[in-house]
Amino acid sequence: MQILDLLFGKPLATSEERAEQVGPSAGLPIFGLDALSSAAYGPEAALTLLIPLGLAGVHLIVPVIAAIVTLLIIVYLSYSQTIEAYPNGGGSYTVASENLGDGAGLLAAAALMIDYILTAAVGISAGVGALVSAVPSLQPHMLGLCLAILLILTIVNMRGVRDTGVVFQIPTFLFLGTMLVVIVLGGVRVLMGGGHPVPVVKPPTLPHATEMLGLWLMLKVFSSGCTAMTGVEAVSNGVMAFRDPRTKNARITLTIIIAFLIVLLLGIALLCRAYGIGATDPNGTHYESVLSQLTAAVTGRSWFYYTTIGSILLVLSLSANTAFADFPRLTKAIASNDFLPHMFLLRGRRLLHSYGIYALVFFTASLLILFGGVTDRLIPLYAIGAFLAFTLSQAGMVVHWMRNPGPKSKLRMLINGIGALATGITLLVVLVAKFMAGAWVTALLVPILIFLMHRVRVHYMRVRRETNCPTPLRLENLQPPVVILPLDRWSRQTEKALRFALGMSPEVIAVHVDSEDSKGSICDEWDRMIAAPLEKAGLKVPELVQITSPYRFVLAPVIDFVLKKEKELETRQIAVLVPELVVKHWWETILHNQRANVLKLLLLLRGNQRIVVINIPWYLAR
Amino acid sequence: MQILDLLFGKPLATSEERAEQVGPSAGLPIFGLDALSSAAYGPEAALTLLIPLGLAGVHLIVPVIAAIVTLLIIVYLSYSQTIEAYPNGGGSYTVASENLGDGAGLLAAAALMIDYILTAAVGISAGVGALVSAVPSLQPHMLGLCLAILLILTIVNMRGVRDTGVVFQIPTFLFLGTMLVVIVLGGVRVLMGGGHPVPVVKPPTLPHATEMLGLWLMLKVFSSGCTAMTGVEAVSNGVMAFRDPRTKNARITLTIIIAFLIVLLLGIALLCRAYGIGATDPNGTHYESVLSQLTAAVTGRSWFYYTTIGSILLVLSLSANTAFADFPRLTKAIASNDFLPHMFLLRGRRLLHSYGIYALVFFTASLLILFGGVTDRLIPLYAIGAFLAFTLSQAGMVVHWMRNPGPKSKLRMLINGIGALATGITLLVVLVAKFMAGAWVTALLVPILIFLMHRVRVHYMRVRRETNCPTPLRLENLQPPVVILPLDRWSRQTEKALRFALGMSPEVIAVHVDSEDSKGSICDEWDRMIAAPLEKAGLKVPELVQITSPYRFVLAPVIDFVLKKEKELETRQIAVLVPELVVKHWWETILHNQRANVLKLLLLLRGNQRIVVINIPWYLAR
Repeated sequence: MQILDLLFGKPLATSEERAEQVGPSAGLPIFGLDALSSAAYGPEAALTLLIPLGLAGVHLIVPVIAAIVTLLIIVYLSYSQTIEAYPNGGGSYTVASENLGDGAGLLAAAALMIDYILTAAVGISAGVGALVSAVPSLQPHMLGLCLAILLILTIVNMRGVRDTGVVFQIPTFLFLGTMLVVIVLGGVRVLMGGGHPVPVVKPPTLPHATEMLGLWLMLKVFSSGCTAMTGVEAVSNGVMAFRDPRTKNARITLTIIIAFLIVLLLGIALLCRAYGIGATDPNGTHYESVLSQLTAAVTGRSWFYYTTIGSILLVLSLSANTAFADFPRLTKAIASNDFLPHMFLLRGRRLLHSYGIYALVFFTASLLILFGGVTDRLIPLYAIGAFLAFTLSQAGMVVHWMRNPGPKSKLRMLINGIGALATGITLLVVLVAKFMAGAWVTALLVPILIFLMHRVRVHYMRVRRETNCPTPLRLENLQPPVVILPLDRWSRQTEKALRFALGMSPEVIAVHVDSEDSKGSICDEWDRMIAAPLEKAGLKVPELVQITSPYRFVLAPVIDFVLKKEKELETRQIAVLVPELVVKHWWETILHNQRANVLKLLLLLRGNQRIVVINIPWYLAR
Repeated sequence: MQILDLLFGKPLATSEERAEQVGPSAGLPIFGLDALSSAAYGPEAALTLLIPLGLAGVHLIVPVIAAIVTLLIIVYLSYSQTIEAYPNGGGSYTVASENLGDGAGLLAAAALMIDYILTAAVGISAGVGALVSAVPSLQPHMLGLCLAILLILTIVNMRGVRDTGVVFQIPTFLFLGTMLVVIVLGGVRVLMGGGHPVPVVKPPTLPHATEMLGLWLMLKVFSSGCTAMTGVEAVSNGVMAFRDPRTKNARITLTIIIAFLIVLLLGIALLCRAYGIGATDPNGTHYESVLSQLTAAVTGRSWFYYTTIGSILLVLSLSANTAFADFPRLTKAIASNDFLPHMFLLRGRRLLHSYGIYALVFFTASLLILFGGVTDRLIPLYAIGAFLAFTLSQAGMVVHWMRNPGPKSKLRMLINGIGALATGITLLVVLVAKFMAGAWVTALLVPILIFLMHRVRVHYMRVRRETNCPTPLRLENLQPPVVILPLDRWSRQTEKALRFALGMSPEVIAVHVDSEDSKGSICDEWDRMIAAPLEKAGLKVPELVQITSPYRFVLAPVIDFVLKKEKELETRQIAVLVPELVVKHWWETILHNQRANVLKLLLLLRGNQRIVVINIPWYLAR
């Protein structure tokens, strides 16, 4: 237990829950890493598709990012309202299922679960990928590095919400700080240079334009850039993790995250245009990321450059942490509606829904191992889930305001309606633009997940129907069971079992199976050891049933006898006493037959409501 | 069960035992394959060491084989007497432990177990090795072929003694027939050629002598040739497998085996000298086995040559069968003296000691896999076990005749004494000659095995002492146990468990653990659903104990409560009722917590003599 305590911290009492809640400064790294780190790849993804347009492409990035920022503001306003309306956590699943019904809820649930698992896998492997492109000698260890980061994230998160926030604050603030320095310094240089700053390190020359801008390309650029928006729903899902005033703290956190994200996105876009920085071919030999070019152009390749690049790598690989914060909360919400196994409801030693973390780690590790740590091909799958969840959440909020009219509900309905419309259209764009690239996998997985969750609920409903007991305790026909006791030879174990049987019921049947390997059968000693003292005391002597077993089976005849008795005694309970030898050391088990365990298992498998197994252990003294 | 029947035959009733017994013609392949097949490698092993002596070596083989045959006759006479004295199976273990004490018995047991496992592994891989040297393209599949043969041997042997004898008769008689034809035909040619026959196919020219004969070489040649004697003890160990008159049939079988072996050994040695056939370097490119040279020299390379060589390969790989026949009988004999787990006493569906076969197959497969199917290096280990067993058996017989004096006991003592002396000296020779080559492994394994067997017996003695009950059933203080029933919420399961508890004991304590995940706790419904009807019926209401669990553990508080109660109620039995949900499909188990199983396990591990677990299953209807 001490190792557990050291790794994961001491167990927390339920009453310590409030101490585990966080404010905005810890909430930022916990719920914001996914959203903020996407500034590192969203603009890059859009610029990569714009390479064929040459310099014209670099100029186009500003309106594209502006459109995305507009969408971001709409989504921000919507989620801000959601936090206020659902102070107990209003993830897309909760909002959709409460307002649009179970079907829409399950759709959101499936989309989000896929989204979070992909967030974790893609985040970790993107960080490791960036690290490997900086230090190529690490290439052979990619999968190992991915799994190591997953392990670290798991351990940190198992320690609970507060510790996670504390641990991840430093890299988050380092990332934000260095990026802001680059943007502000670059902005000053741009202004001082009259819009044409001189780069400290000249970025690679842009290629000549080989294509003209078309609608299809524009759609693809926009939907690639939209990956910058994933992770925005995280805060609304985790409102419960904030300390009082809960709603206010959550909204402040969301506002800070979105504000930073907007500054980063717009700053990167404007500086790229001013410095003439475009993406380089990611498969080419001279690949250099956009942020690396930008930092070098503004500050040169000093220690500051390396600090910035390092913090970007760190934040990218830690962006998986958002999944750790939200996935267990999501599965808990789904399980509380009976759509997932109830184990997701349990809170572990550090007040977390541990099984949600186990499941996330299992699926993430599986994905990483399956793809050898290179999950680039999964990126297209991944915006789908996020935008599906966005759309359902906003649409649900529209219905929510319709049902709960208040002073500002018209305005709010409008904001959420615009949000739903905008994200819905974006969803369609992303789906169409990326269907062949892999979005079809999500389109296939979602219905499968929904079906499974539906089946889980059907099972729970059936169990509840079958075990539900609306009436008080019935007392008729209350009597001890008929006890069946399989006996081998006379021993202390036998005596103990027989005494137990005689103590609990007046009807005891002893069964002896005559198979060749029994030495010194009970039958030889029955009269002297058992019948005589009972008769002397005026007590009823149990019936002794001997069964010959021509094929030397020992357990099958006992089971058959029990089932036969159960049929004969239509209303009675049958209790089968199973004496068992408990050894002190595990290796001693091979010295004794495991008949007791097999008998218990067979009775459970072949038995029925009226057969009960009583285990009489005999502990060896040493 | 139908696949089992097809593969292994129908189960046999204990009463069918006599029909499963065999006569000499089936006993020959079952118990004789090991001994007979050694004619194929004994002379070869001796001749290989004689290569440096050139033609002189070939001439020396006749006296070497003559010495071995003399020893063989002594051993035959001794074992023939053993069979008569021990009609229930007189393997070296039985004879040594009955006459020389447990220590000598264990020594023989350890030696024989090692010997049999090596017989199986070496036999199979020798056969496959010979096959591969004939068909080199099979080289990469050596291990696969070894395991396939092991599987076939296992299946055939699992069908029982009689089926095994029938299956292996054909290859055995084919081997004996062809070898006799070669020897008789060769003998005629030698006589007709005046001692200098003309070979049909000329054997490879013998190399020039490079060494002189020395004592050390002579010892090594003799001890290598002695591998021809392994397998002679098999019949005496398996007397029980013969049909009545048992002793007579066993002796006839042993006589036939030894007679054939002597004819083969002498015939091969004499023909080798007459034709000038020596061994070829087994690691050289022109390797050809002695029997292949001999058959080609006598009959030419006709179809008969290939039939002969084929039958030799077959018999070599089937020689492992002797281990299958004897190992389970040996482990049964050891287990019946409590030195091995008692499972070796059980007889399976086909009246065999199945666990002995499992153990043999497990160890043989392990050896084959460990050595990749090439077990040449194990051969030196292997004569040690056999000769150690020979010596102990003969010495035991000397004591036997001393204790049981009869008309011919003086003569018999003399024969067994000479046997013990001869095999004892041979054992020393083999041990010295082969110690460095690997015999030291056996010398190390034997004491380890003896120690383990001793510990097994100590355990069984302790258990017997602890559970032995010399007094009749005690009846004082016979009363129902105190029942502890952990409850969650009111349901049909709860009702069933409670009714069972009330039926078996007037003292029932209900325990409810308050952890956050319990919805609709039993405490809210206790009065209405349970207390009210009981009070109305004038029955005692069980005590309800509520335990708050600040750290959300559910099972630990129950266990602690049970242990506390057990301490309080010094003389009473405590019965813990564990309600359990039984699902229909295995995958449904993940939908329900496994607390019932964990609770049962924890109660078994942390419980004691006075705590009994009662399992109340609730079967879902569908």
